[in-house]
Amino acid sequence: MSHPEFLPIQWKSTHLELLDQRILPGKKEFLKITTAEETIVAIREMAVRGAPAIAITGVFGLTLGAKLKSGVADPKEIETLLRSILESRPTAVNLSFAIREAKKLIQGISDWVEVAKIWETYGLKMMEEDLAANKALGENGVSLFPKDKSEFHIITHCNTGALATAGHGTALGVIRSLRDAGKKVVVYADETRPFLQGSRLTAFEMMEEGIECYIITDGMSGWLMNHRKIDAVLVGCDRVAANGDTANKIGTYNLGIVAKEHGVPFYVCATKDSFDLNLKTGVEIPIEMRKESEVIQFDFLKSENGNYLFPEGKTSPVGARALNPSFDITKAHLIKNFITEFGCFAPEEISLRLKTV
Amino acid sequence: MSHPEFLPIQWKSTHLELLDQRILPGKKEFLKITTAEETIVAIREMAVRGAPAIAITGVFGLTLGAKLKSGVADPKEIETLLRSILESRPTAVNLSFAIREAKKLIQGISDWVEVAKIWETYGLKMMEEDLAANKALGENGVSLFPKDKSEFHIITHCNTGALATAGHGTALGVIRSLRDAGKKVVVYADETRPFLQGSRLTAFEMMEEGIECYIITDGMSGWLMNHRKIDAVLVGCDRVAANGDTANKIGTYNLGIVAKEHGVPFYVCATKDSFDLNLKTGVEIPIEMRKESEVIQFDFLKSENGNYLFPEGKTSPVGARALNPSFDITKAHLIKNFITEFGCFAPEEISLRLKTV
Repeated sequence: MSHPEFLPIQWKSTHLELLDQRILPGKKEFLKITTAEETIVAIREMAVRGAPAIAITGVFGLTLGAKLKSGVADPKEIETLLRSILESRPTAVNLSFAIREAKKLIQGISDWVEVAKIWETYGLKMMEEDLAANKALGENGVSLFPKDKSEFHIITHCNTGALATAGHGTALGVIRSLRDAGKKVVVYADETRPFLQGSRLTAFEMMEEGIECYIITDGMSGWLMNHRKIDAVLVGCDRVAANGDTANKIGTYNLGIVAKEHGVPFYVCATKDSFDLNLKTGVEIPIEMRKESEVIQFDFLKSENGNYLFPEGKTSPVGARALNPSFDITKAHLIKNFITEFGCFAPEEISLRLKTV
Repeated sequence: MSHPEFLPIQWKSTHLELLDQRILPGKKEFLKITTAEETIVAIREMAVRGAPAIAITGVFGLTLGAKLKSGVADPKEIETLLRSILESRPTAVNLSFAIREAKKLIQGISDWVEVAKIWETYGLKMMEEDLAANKALGENGVSLFPKDKSEFHIITHCNTGALATAGHGTALGVIRSLRDAGKKVVVYADETRPFLQGSRLTAFEMMEEGIECYIITDGMSGWLMNHRKIDAVLVGCDRVAANGDTANKIGTYNLGIVAKEHGVPFYVCATKDSFDLNLKTGVEIPIEMRKESEVIQFDFLKSENGNYLFPEGKTSPVGARALNPSFDITKAHLIKNFITEFGCFAPEEISLRLKTV
């Protein structure tokens, strides 16, 4: 990763430092997380977000929880700790994989010190592997773009970059890899309401990389596809069902439908942990409903003194109602290819490909 | 119109009062407009918006311009005045129709006092006719909904209500008329980025009417159509080409594509003046590009003291770029019916139907 200052997750042995993504790009500030409870709040309030980053953070949250205990680890206490972290956000599958793995790793171990050590090692290994996977994924993504073309125009949604992972990123990783391969890339970033991950985080990452980037509102992609030649849509994902239905940030599904209407290839960037073959279709993926205030009052945006920049009612009438599903399901038929660290393939090949990993 | 306090345009003989829609719903404040120049600024900065409302405001702007002059009206001066108002916003056709008509009405008249009187009368007549047209349109729209059903779930985009017209509204007029016909209506209002006409204005109008309304972000419509039975999408328009291609607020096209994918009927509410048979297809409709800051810093939202609520860079990095087309073209094949004051019909019937009006 070329910009170490981007590292959103930094493990410091006694505590975890998380780049607070709620106040980016206005301020670059790290939260110092010392307990499992603080980890849960940071995940729930989206100080850290992105499926891979959440999973890594979750494991360090376990580690902090274990470190603050001593003596014999009661299985019930371990279970409570595991469950509390698991439930911090329900849609991304990476976290539930990580928690299951964390549980497996300490089977038969009943000393908190030892448990903490195992989880710490696991968290560090996850970070390393995620970075390597993203780099491989990026390289594989490059192979989908014509070699003889020097410039690509790409629409992306949400933030799938270094900020959402241990580094490099998934969809933005492909963009970084294209740039590293000598291509000119022009990125159109859906601002991604309600949380504005596109305008706040993707634009930030692209600008730091010197990659040309234009923010568009989530309703502009159709207009854009009619007015400029768009080569691809690249998105990340939070969970993929066996048939290829894909949960990702709300708005991804609309973008997929619009891409299909215009014949623009729609690629989902996913690492192995995003595939959940236990689920036949996307209907089985749980969708997190978040609080209405994110839609009606921009209440994640805080000013210097910690007050909300939009006092209640500023962007909608006082008492207005809203719906706030945090994710939607892009149906498999809209997806041309998955781009993964173990190759690129169509939705119908998922089961076969996952068997060989 | 059941809520006279909604009247966004009030003509007071010596001046015009415009409900400042930039600060709604936070504050209900009227701008006192006394000159043509102030009218142009109010239109350009979207203190008043909505194609019919812009046209009416434009004619009162002409009236104010004429009232401030005296003696013999120089044809060149008249032409300059007409053109300055015409150019305040380019996409809506209603304004250009109105300006053309205003020019015709004063043919051969060279006294400013008389010119002012003619335009004033014309402006008042437009208001009256717009209100009547909206009510007829609303009734016609009701006929498209099954009589034996008592509840309808409708997605709408932007604000097409009393605030966008002389009263009642077009798409929201149909919703008001459905309610008046004894139906329960549940409205899902696209927030409509960047200017948030949905969350600020449509939610406001619906709440004042006591109609159940949920704000969604512009990327949620696909999710919604999968999760609730949506009976129709109702939108307004700024200009319709002869083949049915329709210019409307940015995001309408995406919504049309998403509706088609789900088999949800997509209705465009239009009064006669929205049809521009001089244009064969939507490609010929000029699209207004607005300033980038509306996308990247919410700069239309001002606090009590007149400062921007989001200081530069708050929702995106300082220096970030954006695209900001204010409208898009929904292709005719996505539109099931136009709903007008002279009946409901498919895109291919436009020419025939317009001949008989």
